[in-house]
Amino acid sequence: MERSIITDYINSNKERMLNELLDLLRIPSVSADTKYKDDVLRTADSIKNRLIEAGAENVEICQTKGYPVVYGEKIIDKNKPTVIVYGHYDVQPADPLNLWHSPPFEPVIKKTETHPDGAIFARGACDDKGQMYMHVKAFEIMMRTNTLPCNVKFMIEGEEEVGSANLGPWIIANKAKLRGDVILISDTSLIANDTPSIDTGLRGLAYMEVEVVGANRDLHSGVYGGAVANPINVLCKIIASCHDENKHITIPNFYDDVLELSAAQRKEMEKAPFDLENYKKDLAIDDVYGEAGYSTIERSGIRPTLDVNGIWGGYTGEGAKTVLPSKATAKISCRLVPNQSSEVITKKVLDYFHSIAPAGVTVKAAEHHGGEPYMTPIDSIEFKAAAKAVETCFGKEPIPVRGGGSIPICALFEKELGLKIVFLGFGLDSDNLHSPNEKYNLENYYKGIETIPYFHHFFAEMKQ
Amino acid sequence: MERSIITDYINSNKERMLNELLDLLRIPSVSADTKYKDDVLRTADSIKNRLIEAGAENVEICQTKGYPVVYGEKIIDKNKPTVIVYGHYDVQPADPLNLWHSPPFEPVIKKTETHPDGAIFARGACDDKGQMYMHVKAFEIMMRTNTLPCNVKFMIEGEEEVGSANLGPWIIANKAKLRGDVILISDTSLIANDTPSIDTGLRGLAYMEVEVVGANRDLHSGVYGGAVANPINVLCKIIASCHDENKHITIPNFYDDVLELSAAQRKEMEKAPFDLENYKKDLAIDDVYGEAGYSTIERSGIRPTLDVNGIWGGYTGEGAKTVLPSKATAKISCRLVPNQSSEVITKKVLDYFHSIAPAGVTVKAAEHHGGEPYMTPIDSIEFKAAAKAVETCFGKEPIPVRGGGSIPICALFEKELGLKIVFLGFGLDSDNLHSPNEKYNLENYYKGIETIPYFHHFFAEMKQ
Repeated sequence: MERSIITDYINSNKERMLNELLDLLRIPSVSADTKYKDDVLRTADSIKNRLIEAGAENVEICQTKGYPVVYGEKIIDKNKPTVIVYGHYDVQPADPLNLWHSPPFEPVIKKTETHPDGAIFARGACDDKGQMYMHVKAFEIMMRTNTLPCNVKFMIEGEEEVGSANLGPWIIANKAKLRGDVILISDTSLIANDTPSIDTGLRGLAYMEVEVVGANRDLHSGVYGGAVANPINVLCKIIASCHDENKHITIPNFYDDVLELSAAQRKEMEKAPFDLENYKKDLAIDDVYGEAGYSTIERSGIRPTLDVNGIWGGYTGEGAKTVLPSKATAKISCRLVPNQSSEVITKKVLDYFHSIAPAGVTVKAAEHHGGEPYMTPIDSIEFKAAAKAVETCFGKEPIPVRGGGSIPICALFEKELGLKIVFLGFGLDSDNLHSPNEKYNLENYYKGIETIPYFHHFFAEMKQ
Repeated sequence: MERSIITDYINSNKERMLNELLDLLRIPSVSADTKYKDDVLRTADSIKNRLIEAGAENVEICQTKGYPVVYGEKIIDKNKPTVIVYGHYDVQPADPLNLWHSPPFEPVIKKTETHPDGAIFARGACDDKGQMYMHVKAFEIMMRTNTLPCNVKFMIEGEEEVGSANLGPWIIANKAKLRGDVILISDTSLIANDTPSIDTGLRGLAYMEVEVVGANRDLHSGVYGGAVANPINVLCKIIASCHDENKHITIPNFYDDVLELSAAQRKEMEKAPFDLENYKKDLAIDDVYGEAGYSTIERSGIRPTLDVNGIWGGYTGEGAKTVLPSKATAKISCRLVPNQSSEVITKKVLDYFHSIAPAGVTVKAAEHHGGEPYMTPIDSIEFKAAAKAVETCFGKEPIPVRGGGSIPICALFEKELGLKIVFLGFGLDSDNLHSPNEKYNLENYYKGIETIPYFHHFFAEMKQ
């Protein structure tokens, strides 16, 4: 494979490839909030058109019970290997809006000290419109330059940020269509552009919502305070009771299925470059905070968690209101590690919440969504092809790392399609995923577009 | 005093007296929220006009650093006793709006099973526009029927619901103007219309806001979860740590100044009628919840409390967002009993919050407002006149009770003006004060208007 064919094409089409992404980022495809329904659907339409323009065939918008999956393919030879590209066109909610320096759905390019080439600031810039769209552009390059070495199938969904509940049934119903050799996903990060890395595993997720209900109405805190359960105080007590002094999760049997790493494996992990002082400085915190006996890298990679993602109850306006609220609610999620099961953990957590609810309140707890943890073996062809592709583009062998995030559907891909997954991610931890001022560096966008054809090339070569 | 003079006047003017109150309730005078500033000021103007119409003299809108105090008086004879009427024209915020059955500032009269005469539903119907306006109408009656037995001064403020911070300085600057013999306040409740009662004390208040700040931005809960302090979890831990298993407040030295009641006093309190089953049924709770070793009446009357009035942080929208928020906030207040001091308790609570903040977060805690607890001696002329007035109207001797609510300025009245306070309240615990669907029974409104002239009469008689 001639590397310059790829880089020349990118250099000649840079501006267009960027503008197409910016157009995509202008559509607020927030899957969690039904008020954006039309926008989410419009985004699916847009992806369909872009796949057709890039040269994909049999492109269709596949209906599900929720938002549709956009499918497209290019079969060059049934005897050649097939790469299935998975990505998502939905994005996280943008709030709190007041913390954005520019409107989340009006992408702007800004140059920063650390990124002299500029970065795109917008919700979805990195997660996952930017990274997903790299695949569409990489495919265009291979089509236009006649370098496509294998078959490609695209499966771009619209519900990743809300748990991919409808993708599973769709996959099960379309197994024949989805026959292939590997699933390729760009929805993770690198340690740094001069320290490339590849995620070899992701954590699973169990997301729940818990509501504590006290009296049938908001009460005057003077008249009833002290005599009637306050749902906020009770909710805080329940949440506080989930961790002990060592920040160990106290929910009965929570750690039962955790696959503990050997001392040797933990030693290997320690080799990944990590600068605690820079980490703290970047977040402006005076110290890290987590489970005793584990390093920061371990806490966010190989250990399960329980975090409150949102809480509300009572009076939250300006000034003071002396109310004893009728209810309080929290969104709570656990990140899971091999071999924990989302369903099992969800049940354990919800059972625990119900079991410790005191008299005087009712606890209503329900599951939002979940996903299983996943691991890619580093001695597989899939991983080796990815490592070689990254090394070709970045000039350095990538470090295998365990990612802390989750792509809920991964475990199902493996189970139903029998395929391994490669996480070819080009984001950076500083990209503010799920946060205000999400960004994606232009350099990473173009490097991703360059690396993907190399992966196809090496994978096709190694597989045959 | 001829009782029929009063009742005849009320009967001939019932509709007008009601319509004037409804007009007042239509103005959303929410002092906590600056967006209602014009409405709060408009309400003060309205009170001024109503006092003039009723026959008050020297009526003026007295500026303060916050909302003004409306003052008016009628001096019939400098040698006669003077009753100072205190009330407030501001109201609590109306939210959560979605729980109101009718708009909070569009008062409606609805008949219910328990109140066949109907009740006014509106924010401020009882607290305190309805109860305050009874005094204006009672004064009108005494003026028009030539039965005013003493001097009257009105002092109606607009910041009671936010702590009366500017009333204190105004009182201190106007001591000469406020010379009098008793302060009369209608801003409390009766046990029931067939079980009249008079509050002999009110709890104090210490209101604070606590913010826990973690990283400098919202973070992806997968990438950082488990490794960085989650401000919501930390805030819950701080709040949960404020009570022990017996619901005793754990803040160091919190109970130091509490005046414990003797066994005899507690036995006396037990005599007040209280039906626990009805109490639970009314609130739709399966059990009460409070400090071990105390009854429900004691918990809400003679014991201090610590309640969260509002909490918020992270994602509170529809669906799920896997965010590790940058900060979480709670509004927290303590009800205080004699001889606790609002300033001392505020300091103890804030010191405690700061002292237990773990590394990895910053705790910012600040005072909103406070007020001291207050007690009226039941062997005083002031209380006796009130008891006789209530008995005259309701046909039963009222029971002295300790109220759980707070009127922050009471302790200052006593200290600066040297006056005792009479709490001549006509609300009911079911009036939903500070809650959605606040109401005030028409029967109680008119009974209040009737009782007030009796109080003036008996007080003038006993005092001379």
